[in-house]
Amino acid sequence: MPVEPFAGRRCVVTGGLGFIGSNLALALARGGAHVTVIDARVARHGANPANLIPDGKGVTEPDTRIALVAADLAATDRPDVHDAAIGAEVVFNLAGQVSHVDSMDDPLFDLDVNTTSQFRFLELLRRENPSATVVYTSTRQIFGKPRYLPVDEDHPVAPVDVNGITKYATEQLHLLYHDVYGLAASAVRLTNVFGPRQRLRDDLQGFLPIFLRRALADDAITVFGDGTQERDCLYVDDVVECLLLAAAVPDAAGQIFNVGNDERLSLGAIAEAVVTATGTGRVEHVPWPPDRDAIDIGSYFGDSSKAKRTLGWEPRTSFAHGIERTVAFYRERRSWYL
Amino acid sequence: MPVEPFAGRRCVVTGGLGFIGSNLALALARGGAHVTVIDARVARHGANPANLIPDGKGVTEPDTRIALVAADLAATDRPDVHDAAIGAEVVFNLAGQVSHVDSMDDPLFDLDVNTTSQFRFLELLRRENPSATVVYTSTRQIFGKPRYLPVDEDHPVAPVDVNGITKYATEQLHLLYHDVYGLAASAVRLTNVFGPRQRLRDDLQGFLPIFLRRALADDAITVFGDGTQERDCLYVDDVVECLLLAAAVPDAAGQIFNVGNDERLSLGAIAEAVVTATGTGRVEHVPWPPDRDAIDIGSYFGDSSKAKRTLGWEPRTSFAHGIERTVAFYRERRSWYL
Repeated sequence: MPVEPFAGRRCVVTGGLGFIGSNLALALARGGAHVTVIDARVARHGANPANLIPDGKGVTEPDTRIALVAADLAATDRPDVHDAAIGAEVVFNLAGQVSHVDSMDDPLFDLDVNTTSQFRFLELLRRENPSATVVYTSTRQIFGKPRYLPVDEDHPVAPVDVNGITKYATEQLHLLYHDVYGLAASAVRLTNVFGPRQRLRDDLQGFLPIFLRRALADDAITVFGDGTQERDCLYVDDVVECLLLAAAVPDAAGQIFNVGNDERLSLGAIAEAVVTATGTGRVEHVPWPPDRDAIDIGSYFGDSSKAKRTLGWEPRTSFAHGIERTVAFYRERRSWYL
Repeated sequence: MPVEPFAGRRCVVTGGLGFIGSNLALALARGGAHVTVIDARVARHGANPANLIPDGKGVTEPDTRIALVAADLAATDRPDVHDAAIGAEVVFNLAGQVSHVDSMDDPLFDLDVNTTSQFRFLELLRRENPSATVVYTSTRQIFGKPRYLPVDEDHPVAPVDVNGITKYATEQLHLLYHDVYGLAASAVRLTNVFGPRQRLRDDLQGFLPIFLRRALADDAITVFGDGTQERDCLYVDDVVECLLLAAAVPDAAGQIFNVGNDERLSLGAIAEAVVTATGTGRVEHVPWPPDRDAIDIGSYFGDSSKAKRTLGWEPRTSFAHGIERTVAFYRERRSWYL
């Protein structure tokens, strides 16, 4: 993992108590970076204080090398948020709400968290820290139902939920601030990510944590319809590596990258693989609920060739291997996640 | 003009004191519709009380058939806004800030006006008036610098200013609410529009009103660079007709329409035509200012074939004829606009 370039550098991870953010913050700290996490600590959005506990059997304390600013990133008038933001050499900007269902239930809240807060934060960066490198995590959700596969960066955007709309607006602001103000910002559109430190306690973070929680509890994994829709899933370590590369490679500035996986599996096969990895639970096929049917997108997998070409990135973890490591993590740390 | 289908129907025009909105509201009132305008009366955004004065020599009073709710459309808890919105059969949703420069100076305000207010308003409609027909005016600004010409609906989106980002988010919410909730919403992406009732007093509404004001004042029209970039301009009556058709044609629901003009003129030719129409002023070529250069998009013209096919729309006013009528309007009503 290319953490070396970050040794001794001041890095901020917004949303660093969340799933991907915490894995990234821990990797940076291991690599000798000075890491500050800014996080509003919303459990429903994936924040978990236990996420900053490093890997290792019997380890129970958060990594003391990581500074935590417990605040919404919109609180740019708070000295701790302000100072962390303007002092950062690199900002990994991952804070946000990820739940598609919640975004439909309360569009204004989703807009506030995913767009308004981000506009405020980016305004601070471009005014007071314009030399920072910024990597924003966007989502494949902005594409909606694919018109063609695999989905590349030029695929038309057509969000099928409010979350896709609000994330896209923020992604575009990052790119605009590169083009107009020279901010070294890039955006990485992530596919379904899984691995240690993902919130399993509710159904808000996508289908993978739902599958995992159910199998670990020896419950049935519910697959809607025939389960033949394909997905490309990424193990979180591969995503962390991609984000580090997006910050380290100068050519990434001003660019968008679709980040998916050439390994594609049907939802049914993913469910079966989870059951195999846990050794518990079972797979159950049920008809599509009407409210889900309206926002279903069929098969999705991304074309990552631009990320591979520009960043030199390559996913290295098979789904079978990743899910095995994930199961082992949750079994060891069950009380913090289940 | 297809106003007949609206006779006796309750129509709301948000932003109805503005340029396009007022022309639309007057057309609807002429056609016998029950018209309510919701407008926050922000002069800088184009609102002008004189805009609701109908055409006609010596006419000096606003059309009394048009009810005015002087409020931000986000004020959905105000009884007048609430009742107008939930009582409407057709909502022409034109309210917003249009200035690209202002959107860069204060991105958070632009987001508030163009997105947050709209999210709140659309939530009200989908919850309490889901059978309304809604037509939203989007902008060609969302496309940024064209990759190919003419620009059709599938052209990749790449806003070059904050206004393009915030308008696109709201456009997409309209379409999402059609797809998920069945709201009969459509979006019309307008090119440069000109004609009576456009704000001429400042440089915030695009290049056409700037050209016009300068020529009317016998000043020089400044054209950046060589002025060979092409534009398609639409006379406001043709736009009003398109909006009426988008509301009247059932197949428009859930659709986006790029609305431009097959008559394309270079910026230099447009400036010359304005000078010819006024008989005053002159054209002056100057180098690009650096801050404008950063957001310039080169030539732009839209492909309106989908609007023509689906709506049966066709622009009917040549630029020369439209600008002649426009000049006559402002000369007659100079004190309200200049």
